[in-house]
Amino acid sequence: MPPFTDGRSLRLAARQGNFSAQTSGQAPDFVQANLVVVPESAAYEFLLFCQRNPKPCPLLEVVEAGSVEAVRLAPGSDLRRDLPRYRVFRDGKLSEEPTDVTALWRDDLVSFLIGCSFSFDRRLIDGGLEVRNVALGKNVPMYRTSIACRKAGRFDGPLVVSMRPFTPGEALRAARISGELPQVHGAPIHIGNPAALGIADLGRPDYGEAVPVHEGELPVFWACGVTPQEVLLRARLPLAITHAPGHMFVSDLREKHLREFSERLA
Amino acid sequence: MPPFTDGRSLRLAARQGNFSAQTSGQAPDFVQANLVVVPESAAYEFLLFCQRNPKPCPLLEVVEAGSVEAVRLAPGSDLRRDLPRYRVFRDGKLSEEPTDVTALWRDDLVSFLIGCSFSFDRRLIDGGLEVRNVALGKNVPMYRTSIACRKAGRFDGPLVVSMRPFTPGEALRAARISGELPQVHGAPIHIGNPAALGIADLGRPDYGEAVPVHEGELPVFWACGVTPQEVLLRARLPLAITHAPGHMFVSDLREKHLREFSERLA
Repeated sequence: MPPFTDGRSLRLAARQGNFSAQTSGQAPDFVQANLVVVPESAAYEFLLFCQRNPKPCPLLEVVEAGSVEAVRLAPGSDLRRDLPRYRVFRDGKLSEEPTDVTALWRDDLVSFLIGCSFSFDRRLIDGGLEVRNVALGKNVPMYRTSIACRKAGRFDGPLVVSMRPFTPGEALRAARISGELPQVHGAPIHIGNPAALGIADLGRPDYGEAVPVHEGELPVFWACGVTPQEVLLRARLPLAITHAPGHMFVSDLREKHLREFSERLA
Repeated sequence: MPPFTDGRSLRLAARQGNFSAQTSGQAPDFVQANLVVVPESAAYEFLLFCQRNPKPCPLLEVVEAGSVEAVRLAPGSDLRRDLPRYRVFRDGKLSEEPTDVTALWRDDLVSFLIGCSFSFDRRLIDGGLEVRNVALGKNVPMYRTSIACRKAGRFDGPLVVSMRPFTPGEALRAARISGELPQVHGAPIHIGNPAALGIADLGRPDYGEAVPVHEGELPVFWACGVTPQEVLLRARLPLAITHAPGHMFVSDLREKHLREFSERLA
């Protein structure tokens, strides 16, 4: 399977059962998104959680119960089949990792598409910065913090952050570049002192892989899209569906249009 | 009653029945907000409407059913009593304009606080611009447009815009200043051609008062906070409560901190 150059062809291949791999590096000009699907009975609380915690949960689109098409991000898409792989959770426990969830879809399911750090890394690299984990071919290191998210109903839990090391000058540049993109977590939430976030050891991340912080570099921390997934698990819903890690929803929205996306009226 | 210099003292005076006037010009350093209160059965749809239409509906805080305190904008506040005057709608029709809604409050009511153009005018004036309607002591002219909002359940309707005339150079400055404040409608949505928005006659606004557009000036249009109120009326809910026009919720959030407000984690 050659690399895909656009979101639509990747989604169609996934739909037809011909692509079930990770989406990193695929269709690089197009925005990828995290998927969270919950029953309508929990949708108000999850939407409120996102509204109250926009740094870790930047919402790109909400697809209502009865629909499976992300009309804004990807007209003609089918959220039940267009991701390469899913995770299905029952009562907060992982039950299966299928490549298609059509068979277990229900008319009361609501889908949330949330900004993804792939967009974010791309901007930093385009801005001339070396993103350590990308350079090393590793997953970004992520840490649970002692900062509580703002609660909404049954959705509650700690903020999870990702970390990228930079020299002080690079860190300021990274803060400026990312600050212009609230759709993918915006500016850093902390710089320099892991202990202030309740992080005991940068060498032992809770998710992803550790990366070295060189002499003269500071660890820079951003709110992370793993936060809503962790909060989702803690809520122990009877049924919830997400993308499998790294197997994102690839949209028709071009990266360069991401900033304007939320400003558009129609 | 002397002018109030802070939100808390105005709210307490309103709570005690000692202040029932408009809030324009009061506590000028503090953010004022639109209030929309709906039964919990409509809260998900209204929240989704705001998420889908952030330009006319920039949400500052959602107060859940069972609470009447805006914990972020004004700790200790009581949304049933702290506004100088309310409007009560039954089945989409105005039924009364009380100064206190404690008697008709119910445990299932959810309150939405939405950014207000008072903050917006203040920034333009601080930026050295003359806001025509403010200079003339008039209410800003507002127009229904031919642009449909993004629908969410029973909430649907046209975008309403406000208009301020500026020379081209001033218009660019106004666009830059307002573009930095997505919490109060952000950048203009159109400049120059009322017909492109379906507006037939600038001299006959649908709300507010007409203002002259001088030779060499362009009409500049912003998404307007009247939009959610118009949409609310069209939904004909059995019960809905809003602030009375001009009688806003005055918060403890300083205007100069508005931009940082939505970035704050805790």
